[in-house]
Order: sequence, then structure tokens, then C-alpha cells
Amino acid sequence: MATGFDTVSFLSDYGLADEFVGVVKAVIRAIAPDTSVIDVTHDVAPHDIRAASLVLARSIQYLPPGVVLAVVDPGVGTDRRALAVEVGGAGDQEERSVLVGPDNGLLAPAVALAGGARRAVSLTNSQWHLAAPGPTFAGRDVFAPVVAHLCAGVELDELGEPVDPFSLVPGIVPLSREEEGAVEGEVLWVDRFGNAQLNVGPDEIDFMGSPVVVRIGDRARHAARVSSFAELAPGQVGLLVDSYGLLAVTLDRRSAAEELPLAAGDLVRLEPAGD
Amino acid sequence: MATGFDTVSFLSDYGLADEFVGVVKAVIRAIAPDTSVIDVTHDVAPHDIRAASLVLARSIQYLPPGVVLAVVDPGVGTDRRALAVEVGGAGDQEERSVLVGPDNGLLAPAVALAGGARRAVSLTNSQWHLAAPGPTFAGRDVFAPVVAHLCAGVELDELGEPVDPFSLVPGIVPLSREEEGAVEGEVLWVDRFGNAQLNVGPDEIDFMGSPVVVRIGDRARHAARVSSFAELAPGQVGLLVDSYGLLAVTLDRRSAAEELPLAAGDLVRLEPAGD
Amino acid sequence: MATGFDTVSFLSDYGLADEFVGVVKAVIRAIAPDTSVIDVTHDVAPHDIRAASLVLARSIQYLPPGVVLAVVDPGVGTDRRALAVEVGGAGDQEERSVLVGPDNGLLAPAVALAGGARRAVSLTNSQWHLAAPGPTFAGRDVFAPVVAHLCAGVELDELGEPVDPFSLVPGIVPLSREEEGAVEGEVLWVDRFGNAQLNVGPDEIDFMGSPVVVRIGDRARHAARVSSFAELAPGQVGLLVDSYGLLAVTLDRRSAAEELPLAAGDLVRLEPAGD
Repeated sequence: MATGFDTVSFLSDYGLADEFVGVVKAVIRAIAPDTSVIDVTHDVAPHDIRAASLVLARSIQYLPPGVVLAVVDPGVGTDRRALAVEVGGAGDQEERSVLVGPDNGLLAPAVALAGGARRAVSLTNSQWHLAAPGPTFAGRDVFAPVVAHLCAGVELDELGEPVDPFSLVPGIVPLSREEEGAVEGEVLWVDRFGNAQLNVGPDEIDFMGSPVVVRIGDRARHAARVSSFAELAPGQVGLLVDSYGLLAVTLDRRSAAEELPLAAGDLVRLEPAGD
Repeated sequence: MATGFDTVSFLSDYGLADEFVGVVKAVIRAIAPDTSVIDVTHDVAPHDIRAASLVLARSIQYLPPGVVLAVVDPGVGTDRRALAVEVGGAGDQEERSVLVGPDNGLLAPAVALAGGARRAVSLTNSQWHLAAPGPTFAGRDVFAPVVAHLCAGVELDELGEPVDPFSLVPGIVPLSREEEGAVEGEVLWVDRFGNAQLNVGPDEIDFMGSPVVVRIGDRARHAARVSSFAELAPGQVGLLVDSYGLLAVTLDRRSAAEELPLAAGDLVRLEPAGD
Repeated sequence: MATGFDTVSFLSDYGLADEFVGVVKAVIRAIAPDTSVIDVTHDVAPHDIRAASLVLARSIQYLPPGVVLAVVDPGVGTDRRALAVEVGGAGDQEERSVLVGPDNGLLAPAVALAGGARRAVSLTNSQWHLAAPGPTFAGRDVFAPVVAHLCAGVELDELGEPVDPFSLVPGIVPLSREEEGAVEGEVLWVDRFGNAQLNVGPDEIDFMGSPVVVRIGDRARHAARVSSFAELAPGQVGLLVDSYGLLAVTLDRRSAAEELPLAAGDLVRLEPAGD
């Protein structure tokens, strides 16, 4: 029976200016040299658990089976739990993965999207950790060696005490709601191109037709339902089904987030434009 | 006969803050796990086809044989073609590569530098694509799986309809010109260190001797012809043959682009300094 | 006897916006395709040899045996030496590594931490270099091919003339000093989270108890000795033993560097708080 993994997908708020990411990879390679690391992103804003959990939720279905290491960890050095959570692997067909990271809501949405936790352990067995001069870099001293040993074939239950898979700190994924013919949601994510992804699916507003009124605070803009950026006239605001199947507020070749403006977490109300 | 490739060189305007680059690599690895990806850069300004085509033109001769994936794609979701273009591979000696990306001028200069296209196909065979919730992330849904299947040995002509290799949208590489004893060119690229590469070769201004007058708009500076940064006095402007064999406006340990100032696309006129 | 290496740890001030890092990796892969490259960081400020030498000193003990390529090279194109320095490999147990880079103080602290240089060569044998259109990109034309050939099994002494291992340009690692019951040090590094690492170990100030007065210029703040961020009240300044065993000025979930403010190179005086 095959054990171990050959891919680590790695997400953090470490940034690329310091050596944090490089040192984590160095520790992994020193222990499990045949492992490849895929950088999901390391530019999550410092300590932004919500943003990181959304990145992970968007990415999880595309990541190859293996270990997923996610480190956004403002509680490092406290008694917050460090977890390894097994998902998948049911039957002979499905491949299993293990998500590793602090138990602060970061992992939970991705775990749910991956079908739920089958097993979870708290990383209490320090046999698999590095000796640490100080407690602040768990990525290097706890998570990296644990991930590497998982890749090298160490069994999940050797990593520490089993914990109830239902005890994970839940993530915060805000839900949209319909109200008097309108839909209230919020901006989940603004991407590099200025597209503002909402927590609203296209089906929720199909009854409104097109255009739709997009209301942010006391401002309002008409937005055309379109299926590609190019259908938009210069400066025209659009509502597009994005690559994750959610509605995004968008402009063609310009940043909707700057233009409107819009930022992650902003509340947005969508209304029929009327006649 | 060997088919397939083991290296993907990847260039985009995706940035590293979002998970776009990581997800593309994840898709490639899930399909073709023995493939290595080299990140050329992902910090091309959003939608800046010209800058990306110049990055690719500067890099192409140094990339290992394999697949080159270049995605700067403001027309994603329109009927712009997505192409795979084969270069090299003539005779037994030369190694072949395949450039993959949107047909918008991004690929053409690199294709020309690599000896021209031998074959090209439009990526119309959706058998090799991922099912996509929306049309905006062709990097993940079209280009990544196509690239991975190419690496895994799928033949070029299985990817879609053959197209005329001479039908690629041409790139825009501005040419310098001599005029009344002066040379007019423009800034192709400002690098991290503030060196401003011109589209002017050293031979074109050898007749001017040194120093040379560098005229940008209504400003003018004397620039010394030098062969290393260290020949320049503090604050002195220099003209140096850069690592690509073109003239660059430069200062020693300071940014010429900030000092003069100069930006990509700026017109520059070089004149003899006279007596 | 095994020769060659399979890992290159790569540090530079190239940034990720240009294609410098990608092209260096491309050159390495074309020569030594089975080599993996770990990016330590490439966001060292341009020409900041001191910062880069500190990154390397912090990282070196975590890097897997192999080649360490470090390029911060304001003297490129001058007669500054380009070196390969062998460390480790004494007896049968220890693994050897080779540090490669310009001889400007960048390598010396890491070499010392790795137990000192056993052999060093100046990279004068151009057989291993690429033909270069200009002298400004030694990373691509000298260091990358040399590193790749080292990985592929070329012996150190084939790379150029041997040099005295004690002749390396020394690095500048500032020392703290005790003075009249106080300790004077400086900020070595401000990380992404705003923690300001000092060149002061915890033992040096244990006699002061807690809190400690942190004096920067004519400003002074009380700082509590703590062992995790979470022990700090909101806005309270702390002194924490960081992940490298040095004292860091820190706040919980906020940037101490912005708050105080503090920057790399700032002089800091630590004094007992008195009664």
C-alpha cells in the first residue's frame, strides 16, 4: 500500500521579501528530497485568515493529491492547535490528501469542500519537529518537518494526538441573502485585475434581468450581465460569471475595484434596474 | 522517437498575490507530474502585451527546450485564437519547443527569434481542456491542461485545427532610425536597477564617439560610453552595452530611470556631443 | 565517490518583476536538468550586501547540502572576484556545500557559520561561462553555468584559480556592546510582520529584568520581556526571543517597526527600567 506524498501545495502570509518561504522549502527538501512544492500564494495580507481561507477554498479542487500546507498564524506560540487533517481516500478510487496548518478557521472551508475530514491529529509529537531557538516560526520548526515526514511516509497518527474531526475552528464564509427582491452579498476577493468577486451566484439574480443596480453604501451603478469582458463598452460596469462560478463586478481592461471603488469585505446590494 | 517535454517555462501577468500561478502549476502537475516549471516572471503589468513580448524575446534563447507558456490575455473569452506554435526541431540536431498562449502579438517576436514557426494549431479541441465555470481563466482551463498534455506526449496536431504559421498576430518591436546624424529610438525596458534599455545597438552610435547627448523630450544629458557601471563617476550618466547587446542608459548603483527620468516607451534621441 | 549536487539554494537582489531569476534557473536547468532550485529570496534591496549577508547567515543552517548561489553584485563587470567556496565535507559524516557568488562580503558570514572555508577558487576558467553580449548579468553568464556544472559533477578546482580561503572580503556583522549597565545594539532586520530583530541575545539583558527601556535616538519605550506575541496587550511593546535566538522588538498582530518606528541599521539602546 502506497504511503507518503510527492507534492506539497503551500499557502502562507509570509511574503517573498523575507526568507521564510525559502527556509520552509529547504527544511522540507532536506527531509523529503523527492517532494515538489507548489506555491499557491504567499502574499496573503499578514494575519488575514479570512482571505487565506478563501484562497484555499478556491484552489483546493485544483491541487494535486498530497499535502496542503497553509500557514497564516497570528496565534503562533499560544495554545492554538496545529493540525493535520486527512480528507478523501474513501474507497480505492479516491485519492487522499492531508491539510496541515493552525486551527484558526483557515483550513475548515477547504476541508469541507474536499468532502470533510476523515481523521485529524494535533501535532503534539515533537519527535517530528525541529529544535527551535524561539517559538515564532512554526512554519519552519513544526509545519515544515511534519509535512516532510508525511511526504516521506510517516503515518498521520504518529504525528500527535487524534482530535475530533468535527472540532476544527470553523471558517467564516459569508452567505448572501435575498431581501425584498434584492440580493445582499459582499465582496469576497479583489484580484490583480480589479475584478471583485461576490458571494453571489448567477442563479440568485437571474430574475432581475440586465442591467442590475449594484449598490455599495450610498453609491449605485448599473451593471450589465455579460459573459466576457469584451462585451463591455469602455467604462461600462459588468457582472460576469467568473472562473469560480460566482458573480464578479468587472470592467473591460480596467480595475472595477479602483473605479467603483470596491474592496474585499464591502457589502454589496444587487437590485433589479426597473424600467 | 521521444515525444513530450519535461520543462515548462511560464510567463504571465498574473502576479503572485492571487493564486492564479499556483493553480496553473497545480493543474499541470496533476496531469504531467514529472514536469518542472520555470517561472520567467509573472509581474508583467496587467494586459501589457508589449512588455511581455519583450520579456519573452529577451529570454527565449536561454530557455531549455520544452513548452513555453505565455499568458497575457486581455481578450480572454473572445474569439481571439489560443495557439500552440512549434519552433526548432529541424534535422536531428536541433531541439524543438512549443510556445503556447493567446494570439495577440505576445508570441510572435519570440517565435521569430527561435527560427520561425514550423507548425501551429488553434487549441480548439476541448477534449484537452478543463470544464470551466466561467470563461475568464483560460490559463487554468485551457492553457495549463494543454501544456501538460503536450508534456505528457500528446501530439501537436491533436490539440486542434492547424493554422497557417504565418498568420500569427505580429508583435510590435519598435525600430530605431538614423536621422541627420542622430539616432532616434525608445526605451524598451526599465529593469529593477533602473537601467533603461534602448532599441539601439552600440554599432549605431559608434560614429558619435563619447560622450553622447541623450535627449528625452526637451531635456538633454551627456552620457559617457562605458563598458561597466564602475567606470561612471557618482551621478554620471552612462551608455553601456547591456547583457542583451543593446545600449542602456545607466548610472552606477543608482537608478537612471528615476534620475533622468525615463520609462518604457519613452522616445530617446542620441546625438554627437560636438566640441 | 559521489560528486555533484542536486540542490541549488538561490538568493539575490534581482527581484521577481524582471526575468533575471527565471533566466538563471533556465540556464541551470539546461546544463543540469536534475537540479532543484530553492529560492531563498530575491527581494533583497538592490545592492544591499549587508541585508543579503544577513539573510544568508540566518538561512544557511537550514539549507540542504548543495550549492548556495548568492548574487548581490554592485561591482559586476569590475575586477571584484567571483568565487566558489567549499564548506563542510570533513570526515565521512559531514556533507559538503559550495557557496558561489561575488567576493564582496556577501558570503563570508555564512561561510563562517558553516564552519569555515575548506577551499576556494576564483571563477576564472571561462570554459564554464556563457558567451556574454555585455558584462552586466554575471548571474546568467558566469554564476548560473558554473553552479550547474558543479551540480553536474565538475570539480571545484576546474572552475578557476585556487585562492586563499582566508582572503575572502569579510562581511559586516555589527556587534552589540555593554556600556554602563546598558546594552547598545542595532536593528539587523525588519521582517514582513514588522518585528525588528536586534543583534542582542537574551542573555545579554537578563540582568535587567522586565520591562526594559528601548531607546532609539531621543525616543524611549518600555518593552516587556515575553515569550510569545500573545502575552502582549494591544499596543504593548515586547522583547521576544525570535526564531533565530535573538531579541526582537515586537507588537502583537501589529508592526513594531511602523509603530516605534524602527528600520534596519537603527541603533538601539536597552536599559533597565529602574523603579
